[in-house]
Formats: sequence, structure tokens, C-alpha cells
Amino acid sequence: MMTPMRYILLVLGAIISIHYILSFTHEEYGKATSISSITEQWTGSKSNPPYKTPVPDEYYKPDSPMDIQDRKANATFVMLVRNSDLSGIMSSMKQIEDRFNRKFQYPYVFLNDEPFTQTFKDRIQALTNTTVEFGVIPSDHWHQPSWVDEDRASKSRQEMVNNNVIYGGSVPYRNMCRFNSGFFYRHELLQKYRYYWRVEPDIKLFCDVDYDPFLMMQDQNKVYGFTISLYEYQATIPTLWTAVKSFINANPEFVAPGNAMAFLSDDAGESYNLCHFWSNFEIADLDFWRGEAYSKFFEYLDEQGGFYYERWGDAPVHSIGAALFAKKEQIHFFNDIGYRHEPFQHCPQGDAHAKGKCWCDPGQNFGKYLHTNVRLPLKFISLDYEWYSCLNRYDKIFS
Amino acid sequence: MMTPMRYILLVLGAIISIHYILSFTHEEYGKATSISSITEQWTGSKSNPPYKTPVPDEYYKPDSPMDIQDRKANATFVMLVRNSDLSGIMSSMKQIEDRFNRKFQYPYVFLNDEPFTQTFKDRIQALTNTTVEFGVIPSDHWHQPSWVDEDRASKSRQEMVNNNVIYGGSVPYRNMCRFNSGFFYRHELLQKYRYYWRVEPDIKLFCDVDYDPFLMMQDQNKVYGFTISLYEYQATIPTLWTAVKSFINANPEFVAPGNAMAFLSDDAGESYNLCHFWSNFEIADLDFWRGEAYSKFFEYLDEQGGFYYERWGDAPVHSIGAALFAKKEQIHFFNDIGYRHEPFQHCPQGDAHAKGKCWCDPGQNFGKYLHTNVRLPLKFISLDYEWYSCLNRYDKIFS
Repeated sequence: MMTPMRYILLVLGAIISIHYILSFTHEEYGKATSISSITEQWTGSKSNPPYKTPVPDEYYKPDSPMDIQDRKANATFVMLVRNSDLSGIMSSMKQIEDRFNRKFQYPYVFLNDEPFTQTFKDRIQALTNTTVEFGVIPSDHWHQPSWVDEDRASKSRQEMVNNNVIYGGSVPYRNMCRFNSGFFYRHELLQKYRYYWRVEPDIKLFCDVDYDPFLMMQDQNKVYGFTISLYEYQATIPTLWTAVKSFINANPEFVAPGNAMAFLSDDAGESYNLCHFWSNFEIADLDFWRGEAYSKFFEYLDEQGGFYYERWGDAPVHSIGAALFAKKEQIHFFNDIGYRHEPFQHCPQGDAHAKGKCWCDPGQNFGKYLHTNVRLPLKFISLDYEWYSCLNRYDKIFS
Repeated sequence: MMTPMRYILLVLGAIISIHYILSFTHEEYGKATSISSITEQWTGSKSNPPYKTPVPDEYYKPDSPMDIQDRKANATFVMLVRNSDLSGIMSSMKQIEDRFNRKFQYPYVFLNDEPFTQTFKDRIQALTNTTVEFGVIPSDHWHQPSWVDEDRASKSRQEMVNNNVIYGGSVPYRNMCRFNSGFFYRHELLQKYRYYWRVEPDIKLFCDVDYDPFLMMQDQNKVYGFTISLYEYQATIPTLWTAVKSFINANPEFVAPGNAMAFLSDDAGESYNLCHFWSNFEIADLDFWRGEAYSKFFEYLDEQGGFYYERWGDAPVHSIGAALFAKKEQIHFFNDIGYRHEPFQHCPQGDAHAKGKCWCDPGQNFGKYLHTNVRLPLKFISLDYEWYSCLNRYDKIFS
């Protein structure tokens, strides 16, 4: 019964199959035919997000570490690590030095919930000619507060373990998320600094950073810089957005005009779309976190206990804070910083790739995602070449 | 029946157990109590091998890439890679640039048995300001010669597969070993050079190399430099030493006086102890390979067909050539070059570690050897902290 309709269906089926195969195997084809690319053609070109403007030449430094830089920002690297992270953080730090800091010579601050060993300090100091300071975190900035109901917290941890939520059963992980959300910028060793660059163990930095991102942040009045954005696991933050909304309703004066709410929510704030900046990389303004809006915001969230009753991450907390209490232009996408933190990466494209002498594959912008076993909410899986990046949403807030 | 003898045995057993546990878990204890260390105390101190003399200051370069170096050697990097090795070789090359070549600006030669793609060439050239040349290997320098008996060769491959010999079934691997043994230095792109540094994909370079190793080789008349030495798999070279002995007997005039035979053999040449320099890292003199002794030696070995009937590696072939046809002082241990090629590494100790700003763990000198699944002849397993390194034997030839 080969009716004409059957032929048509057969041909249609073949075309769709070939399209899907090409989308997966040929990056350029995938990009050219992605929904976002096609709708862009229909709706006319958008205004460019700010990161598409090249970094001005004045922030670049000629390739000689002997030159003393005229102008410096008041900035530092921050590494929160354990003694056992030594080899991973040395690998990261050597790359920071190679790609950027051998020319710019910014200091380092290392933080730990226990004292660093002498070996750790000696090995780290040997990697750089700049100042390195090592600090211990005050106990009440790190540990679960006594007012948290441990019965309720442990029940919730067990439930997350049963549901295979990553780090679902870990208290130290929760301590770290809470510390990074609301305490690191209050540490005594960071008091003298205005800007920081957060660095984790075992990262990769793919491109030479020949300009000073701190100075750029300062001169352009930016408060938060990121390289990778993606979706949060809903299971770790069931009531976070409810808390955010209560805070906003009670304190509408803190919400900045021209903010980036559209990055967080597709329905003007009613619900959270789970987009956040991946906070294991951050170049940001410590004074922004220290300011009244974010401080009160963190305090309110902390009172809800969600860092322990759920597993609120510092990434959504920082991202929501930056998106609501700053103007959208104050959030900067470091498009030219090639970065990998397993299992995701950002690799600059085109001119930025060449200018940075990047060694990552520009065709591989979100890691070997087909081989990772990261659990993601199914609804976010699309056929876009960056299928669980939130970059498209970031771009959209400037259109 | 707790006789005194039983008590003594019990105590002895406990002491021995504690000793073994400490040897494995406490590096310093292991070193201090190793057989070699104890015998050294009994036999008095030895004369130092040459690499223990620090590299003279004149070979160091101040930390500024803007300085033009006065004196340069006629040297190049050599990378034998496939198009599919792009990401691994970019990682290696970025480290070569960071640790050494951004200051010294030596050129690169890339070789392949197929033409490099334009993408490959563009991506590689983007990583450096120096000259990069890309060459194709002549077919007869790469493929199994027609006079090799393929029946015999394929039977031998099958046998190695059955015995789980690594790369035992691979013809391309054999092509590569033969090419590296006797052909790479004849490639047209290498004709103009005297010294080379061999670089493989996915290596790690742990320390800044602030001096010019090529100039040092040239001025001190060295012909071969290595960082790691170890034992070869006997199963890959059953008749290699017999061939070596025949060649020596027929051509005694090529054997250098004051050579390093004692590195290769514990019985004055009767048998091979399997020690070799790990040739994935080499800084060496191309003219040494091109010379009459090594050329005739390679020709003779090639005629035996052992590259295909067995699985002779370029590491033992180069090592035997260097150890027999050069004076022992012409073989240099680059103690200060921290290097890793999975699963082994060399990490400089003490002053060299600090001077090179090394990021490897000086306590980990042979990789995570307890976790590797590399098959080694059992007789070589000792409790020394470098239990299958041949470095002790190299040291001994200078004592």
C-alpha cells in the first residue's frame, strides 16, 4: 500500500534523520540550523551584548614581565582549598601565572577551614614571586549554626542521597556553599581588597589573558564577571525562589533598575528558570557582596536554613544577587577567557581564540557533554550546540 | 606453647611489618632505609654523576622574553603526531612555550605519515610566534618493507596479542618505532638542524627551564639527554641483544672507549639488563644518529626484521646506540626538567625544584606506580622508592 502519502512521510523521515545526524556531527551545520539562529533571521538582528565589543587596547600589556605596570587594581586571587588539594591547586595556580599573572603580579589569598601545613605553604609560595597569604576560616563562618534543626537537616540529606543528588549527603559541601555565599568576602585577609578572582583546583585556563580584567571591572563599574552559565539542579533549591520573592517583596528598594531579572526568570519573576553563573570562576567586586542589598539578602536566605535543609549552592545565590541588585551592564561575560572546570568548558571563538593563543578546541564549547554522566532535568535538553548553557538567555537581556 | 623463640619471631615479624608499612607510606623513611642507601653508607660516598653539578649560570636567561638571546644552538622541537592528536599536542606545546620557549624561541617541526589538515596547522601556528614547519613522512620510511615475511610477522603479532603484550598486535606502532629508530633524523625538514627536543602529546612539563639545554649539549659535547630511565618489557625484544652482540663483534671499531655499557649490562655485555632511556623525551644530537656507527647499527638491526618479527622499541635502540657509540659523559640526565608521560614522571628534588618553580610533588618521582596496571617483570620489583627506575644504574657508571 505505497500511497503518495507514504512516500512523502518516508522522504520527510529521511530528511529529519539526516538533519539530526548532521546537527550532532557537524557543528557549523548545527549552529546554522538551530532554532535560535533561525528565529534570529526572522526577527532581524539583535543589538549586541556588551562582551561582543572588543576589550580596549589600553588594558593590554606588552609581552614583557620586566615592565612595571603603571596602574593596578586593588585585587587578589582567592583560593578556598584543603591541604589535600595541593596538587590540584598548584596545577591551577601555575596556569594563572602562565596565562596572566607573571605579567600582572597580583597577590593570592588561600583560605582553609584548617591551618595550612608548612609544606603546602612552601610549595605554593615557590610558584610565584608575588605575595601569598594563608588564612584560616573562623569556625562560625564554616560550620552548621546551632539553631539549624539537625533532625530536619539530616532527614533532608538522606532523602537527597536516596535521590542520587550530587553532594546530597555532604555537610562539608553545604558549609562550603554557605561560606562562599555569605562569608568569604568578610574574611580578614580580604578586607583590604576590592576585587577578586576565584580559582579552584584542577581548572584549565586555555588562553593568554594579556589585559587586566580587574582594571576593566573597576573602570567600567562592573560588579560580577563569569565565563560559564548553566542550569541549576532543581532538587537542590526547591524553596530558594520562594525565599527570593519574599525578600524582594519586603525590600523592593534593593532591586536595581535595569537589572538582569530576565536572565533568571522567563515570567517576570514569577518562577526561576534555574539559570546561574557557574561560580567556580568569578571575577567580582567584594564591595558589592559587602553592600547593604546583598548582605541583607544573604542574611534573609541564611535564616531560612536552606543551605542545610536543602542544598543551596553559592552559584545560584551569587547569580540571583548579582542579577537583581546590579544593573545588567554590570554583569560581564569574559568571552575571551578560555576556561574548563570538569565537565564543562568555555572556549573563545574566532578572533578572541587567535588573540589569546588559546589551546582549546573552539568547536568544543561545552565539554564532552555527550559522554558526561551529569544528571540534568530532561526539559532542558535541546539540540542547540550549547544545549544546557544559559548564554543565549544572557544575550537576550541585551536585545 | 609460647616458647622464647615464638616471642622472638613474633617481635621480628612485627618489626618487619612496621618497616614495610613505613617504607611505603613515609617516603623519607623509605629512602633512608633502602638497600642502596644503606650499602652507600657501608662503601663510603661515591663520586657524583655529572648531572649533580649545577648548570652554569651562563646558560640561564633573565626572565624577559623581550631580550634577544645572544647565542643560539642550531636546534628544533620535533613532534611526530597524527591529525587526531591535535588537542594532546597543543597541550604539550603550550607547556613547552610556557616553561621554556617563550623566552628561547626555537622552531618546531611536525611530522606525520599523512598530510596535516589546514585546521591542524592553523591551530598549532596560533600557539607560538616562532617558525613551525609541517612535513609528511616518505612512505618507505614508514611502512613495513616488502622483504619482511608478513606471515611470520603476523604470527608473532598474534602471539603477542595472546600474551597481552602492550601494542603487541599493532603494525602502526611498529612503523613508528622503526621510524623513530632510524628515519626521523633523515627527514628533509630536519636536515638543517643539529639538535632536537622530542615532544609527545599530553606530556606535562613541571618546571621552568630557564637555561638553554641545546647550547649546553653543544658546548659540553653531549649527544643524548634524558629525564626518565626504566626497564624494557623483555617480551618485545627477545633477540635484540643477540643482534647487538653480533653487530659489536663484527664492528668493534664503532664501540666508544669509556662508553656506558655498564648501564645496559651487569655482566660486561653478555646479557642486557633491559635498562633504557625513555625516548618519548629526548634532547639529542641529530648528527650522532646520522654518524657512521649508529647508521650502520640501525641498518643491521633493521635487516634482522626485529621491528616487525618482534616489537623492538626506539627507546632501547636509541639507548643502546647512545650507550655504546658515545662516551658515558656524553649522555646527560636532565635532572632539572620535571616531566610526566603517563604513567611515569620525574620531579626534580631540593634546589632544582625551587629554582624551576616546579609544580610537581618532589615526593612522587615515579608516578602513582602502585595504581598503574603496567605489567613489569616481577624480578625488578624492589622496595626502593624508585623501584623500576634505572637511575641508580646510570649513577653507578660514574662511580
